[in-house]
Amino acid sequence: MCRTCDHTIHRGQRHYGWDRDFAPVLVARSGETALFQCHDAANDHFDAESTAADIATLDFDKVNPVSGPVFVEGARPGDVLKVEILEFAPSGFGWTANIPGFGLLADQFPDPALHVWSYDRDLGGPGLFGARARVPLKPFAGTIGVAPAEAGPHSVVPPRRVGGNLDIRDLAAGATLYLPVEVEGALFSIGDTHAAQGDGEVCGTAIESAMDVALRFEVIAGRPLKMPMFETPGPVTRHLDGKGYVATTGIGPDLMTGARDAVSGMIDHLCASEGLDPVDAYMLCSVAGDLRISEIVDVPNFVVSFHFPKTVFG
Amino acid sequence: MCRTCDHTIHRGQRHYGWDRDFAPVLVARSGETALFQCHDAANDHFDAESTAADIATLDFDKVNPVSGPVFVEGARPGDVLKVEILEFAPSGFGWTANIPGFGLLADQFPDPALHVWSYDRDLGGPGLFGARARVPLKPFAGTIGVAPAEAGPHSVVPPRRVGGNLDIRDLAAGATLYLPVEVEGALFSIGDTHAAQGDGEVCGTAIESAMDVALRFEVIAGRPLKMPMFETPGPVTRHLDGKGYVATTGIGPDLMTGARDAVSGMIDHLCASEGLDPVDAYMLCSVAGDLRISEIVDVPNFVVSFHFPKTVFG
Repeated sequence: MCRTCDHTIHRGQRHYGWDRDFAPVLVARSGETALFQCHDAANDHFDAESTAADIATLDFDKVNPVSGPVFVEGARPGDVLKVEILEFAPSGFGWTANIPGFGLLADQFPDPALHVWSYDRDLGGPGLFGARARVPLKPFAGTIGVAPAEAGPHSVVPPRRVGGNLDIRDLAAGATLYLPVEVEGALFSIGDTHAAQGDGEVCGTAIESAMDVALRFEVIAGRPLKMPMFETPGPVTRHLDGKGYVATTGIGPDLMTGARDAVSGMIDHLCASEGLDPVDAYMLCSVAGDLRISEIVDVPNFVVSFHFPKTVFG
Repeated sequence: MCRTCDHTIHRGQRHYGWDRDFAPVLVARSGETALFQCHDAANDHFDAESTAADIATLDFDKVNPVSGPVFVEGARPGDVLKVEILEFAPSGFGWTANIPGFGLLADQFPDPALHVWSYDRDLGGPGLFGARARVPLKPFAGTIGVAPAEAGPHSVVPPRRVGGNLDIRDLAAGATLYLPVEVEGALFSIGDTHAAQGDGEVCGTAIESAMDVALRFEVIAGRPLKMPMFETPGPVTRHLDGKGYVATTGIGPDLMTGARDAVSGMIDHLCASEGLDPVDAYMLCSVAGDLRISEIVDVPNFVVSFHFPKTVFG
């Protein structure tokens, strides 16, 4: 794993939340590479023996630790930090939780639930859930960003125009992310690595899994960006789409309600067709199903679709 | 094209808007097939010589004509109508318009614009737009549904739980749609056929194109549905995804604003990178780019992504 990287950010070099005044753990040059030893979103709270009862002792002040920050020489406010995502070395252990009060259907799922995953760290096969579900894996970093300009501490939970907790499933190996820089040196950090997630991350967690990540930085001046952009080198759903999808819809004037209705419809469908417990269906939707906006113009009603890949039970 | 269909709904057998009291043009049995000769969304107003000036004379009382309705024997309120989408015979002529007052960015694009397409009706190649853009084609019906229970006329523009103007790009040949039935006989109609569209249909129109569609009906009793569902027999983006994507994002507490920001970002990017006129970039986004909800749980900010396939300019 990245034996040629210029730098290593070690496991102890992490921080909680964002703050422009955090001291950098490394000064890197544009064009250099770094290996980040990332923690999972629970700061390694869970292990293979954990149960839903362990969610109660999760330290919410220390969720989503991120490794860094890295000061990239030459990066100035108004520039763009180009981040090439080179490689992931997954740990083979992961977890997915329903955390009370968090998630798209938090009102319908008030009780804690936890699934622990043991998967092939070489990604030679899917992640297994229950007796029959096989979830294709595709590692990426849920949280990836730079420090916001505004002084003081900022929660790590919401993403911002400088990135952060973006949870964009397509930021996998080979992708390139472009982040607006707001402070001198950019102050880049990364963490919250995921072995798999669907678009939306609907239950609030993915297959949360510590892993190492190798990246290359480049500073681009003179082409300011309003919001993060990214490029992928090829298709983004081939790990999921071979057997097609079953899809539910939510139709109405509010996209959030449409998304909730579409996901509720899929949970109902998976419970009826596969005999799943509703919270298990909810967690499977989060790690494998995709929220798409099918139409956003036919006023006053819009269509949100939730695509669940048939390969999971295929 | 469907020489074995049991029935044909001819071009004159269309209606405007939905009404449970429209007389059926056909009574079909569960299991039977029908060929629908569909009009385009402008009721065939445009031709190869049309320009943006012709948008002013569009008759909005007659947009989105749908062919039908078909009374399916045995379908009762509470049942589900299963519609197998068998085959499309595209006309080879299409149009995409920016219609003032309509579309996700209507405030930013107040002036009418029209692009007319002449494409290979055998779908042997992409649709051409300007000097360089090549848009992969995948025909589907934008409007497909059954009559709502509520008496009286209903606009054809908004989709409803009984379907209608769903504009779901993945309802292509091979897909199966499940529609909640609200009236005796279901009263099924279809139209607004599209040669291509991205998820979202962001400028408000797709590659609007008259075509014939072959379908099979089946009535399913005893398994009521809240909202439409569908299944696809295989992948849904292989016509688009071979060269990967460039993607923009919109980040914030409102999904609609996020979607607008993501599409605006892509228009800026396409204008800068390809030298396009903004309204041309907007129309290309509508026919080829996809709105996805990357995360909907990291309160208070959500991430909407807009994926534009690199193959269009690749």
